[in-house]
Amino acid sequence: MRIAIDAMGGDHAPAEIIAGALEAREVLKDENEIVLIGDEGVIREHLERLKSTPDLFRIFHAPEVIGMDEPPVESLRRKKRSSIGVMARAASHRQVDAVISAGNTGACVAGCQLRMRTLEGVHRPGIATVFPTRSGPVTLCDVGANIVCKPIHLYQYAVMSCVYAEEMLGISSPRVGLMNIGEEDAKGNELVKKTRALLKADSRINFVGNLEGRDIFEGAYDVVICEGFVGNVVLKTAEGLVDMIFRAIKDELMDHWMLALQFKKVMTNIYKKYDYNEYGGALLLGVNGTAVICHGSSKARTIKNAILASEKFYMRKINEKIIERLSQSGVVPNGQ
Amino acid sequence: MRIAIDAMGGDHAPAEIIAGALEAREVLKDENEIVLIGDEGVIREHLERLKSTPDLFRIFHAPEVIGMDEPPVESLRRKKRSSIGVMARAASHRQVDAVISAGNTGACVAGCQLRMRTLEGVHRPGIATVFPTRSGPVTLCDVGANIVCKPIHLYQYAVMSCVYAEEMLGISSPRVGLMNIGEEDAKGNELVKKTRALLKADSRINFVGNLEGRDIFEGAYDVVICEGFVGNVVLKTAEGLVDMIFRAIKDELMDHWMLALQFKKVMTNIYKKYDYNEYGGALLLGVNGTAVICHGSSKARTIKNAILASEKFYMRKINEKIIERLSQSGVVPNGQ
Repeated sequence: MRIAIDAMGGDHAPAEIIAGALEAREVLKDENEIVLIGDEGVIREHLERLKSTPDLFRIFHAPEVIGMDEPPVESLRRKKRSSIGVMARAASHRQVDAVISAGNTGACVAGCQLRMRTLEGVHRPGIATVFPTRSGPVTLCDVGANIVCKPIHLYQYAVMSCVYAEEMLGISSPRVGLMNIGEEDAKGNELVKKTRALLKADSRINFVGNLEGRDIFEGAYDVVICEGFVGNVVLKTAEGLVDMIFRAIKDELMDHWMLALQFKKVMTNIYKKYDYNEYGGALLLGVNGTAVICHGSSKARTIKNAILASEKFYMRKINEKIIERLSQSGVVPNGQ
Repeated sequence: MRIAIDAMGGDHAPAEIIAGALEAREVLKDENEIVLIGDEGVIREHLERLKSTPDLFRIFHAPEVIGMDEPPVESLRRKKRSSIGVMARAASHRQVDAVISAGNTGACVAGCQLRMRTLEGVHRPGIATVFPTRSGPVTLCDVGANIVCKPIHLYQYAVMSCVYAEEMLGISSPRVGLMNIGEEDAKGNELVKKTRALLKADSRINFVGNLEGRDIFEGAYDVVICEGFVGNVVLKTAEGLVDMIFRAIKDELMDHWMLALQFKKVMTNIYKKYDYNEYGGALLLGVNGTAVICHGSSKARTIKNAILASEKFYMRKINEKIIERLSQSGVVPNGQ
């Protein structure tokens, strides 16, 4: 397969992206090709610096870059030769089988939706991200692709995330939870109540019920479904809070360097156990292709893992399984 | 003033609630009365056990209790003599000036809304909770009172939360942020975009702009506004995550008891700096009265602080200031 990576996207691009591609190249089977997308001169320069043989990668030249804070759709339209734009077009022309970017998330999602289109039967793509918890990973979908969400979208996120959790994380019959503000049936807004009915109507979904924010980390759910607005706020609140807590601990340890040294080992162990970089990035489920969205802060190891994840996603034919699963589902949109 | 407290509500009721009332009694001025609401026999028994003089408190007898997981509105209707029901009625008859409960949040909010009604000019009450951050407290509103939210509701939450932050937390000209999934103007759903226009139209609001989940903890905002569904998920995600992180650290320290002992001191310092129990509970802003909602896990100290907070809220005439502020606002609902 041919895996394209946006060499210019992310806080540490292009150095860490290219380093990650090199790491992936070492473990990836020979028949798989990695395509670096970005300014050819800059990419070659970095490859030389990393002492890479020039023919390890194909390069698609894209002289423009969409900045992390630029308006997604407008930038895509204006910068026709941006790395994200060129990458999405390459996917739509079947020149590549998977696309990966740590750049502007909105532009990447918009580019993929626009160019790759949706899978047969899918109403809206959703971003599925994996949270590490004490008792294994939880897949949260959607974390920001779709902010005008209907019950049928949430229902399809559940189906797609289950296939994802089964195939990518090896979880059989994943326990599905619907994010809500209380566990009782009667709780929640119209979107949640109608989605609940759809989830219950599909006997192939192992639907456990509503859950509250705090339950995400309890290990009672393998898949958690919510609209993109809520999921995005959850994801970013979690990031901000983790950061605040560890900075608070660091502040306290400032004047106790012996303790700080010992505690560093403790932290290293915790990082290992709760390492979300291992999952490589978030899958944009429901697009007609393989699209991985990495965090802007991604370094080489995450990029390597994203490349390996895209290969696994493609080889396991997850999209074919999603189409099959949706075609067998008796749940009909019914104006929802 | 007369402060009523639901003696039967919360995970540690009635023991910790009554203990908290006793602690508050010691610091509260003599002219203020604390009213304990619940089963009179049970309350007297606990007061005796705590060696309290029987006439320190008034007691309103309420033989029924609404359980933490019972459906709010239905239970209120069925259990006419529940502590929350009796308390809300006492407030509506002006027998008490403030109500406090650590019991079923939904029932407490519903009871207060139903019996106390809303303040003049207020469309929907909202729950304002305070988050400790590295650089001071942030007031988040709404965290679950209102899940069918219109722009005018969010706008009014901003006005009410600003008065709250000014009067209760001593923050002048609070910096207001609107929770969104990106900082740019164009980002977000219709609710957020329309609210943004209302907030910008009121020059008395120090509106900074949109913020993302991670920014809550950065100290750039004093007031953060969001719909109840989102706020509730944020609050509970934060609770669950803090819990998971500290359990993870504890797990790691299991086999290092010397390090664990030293680290405990570090944690005690952090708890002191980031102690949300100090704020005593969340204010239900916009009801015609003073209503404090405490966490189900509240212990005596939190209850004491909630009682003191209700006194401060009442004495500072925050409701009068909210009415005044809203009446001067040029922002008209306009079908929103």
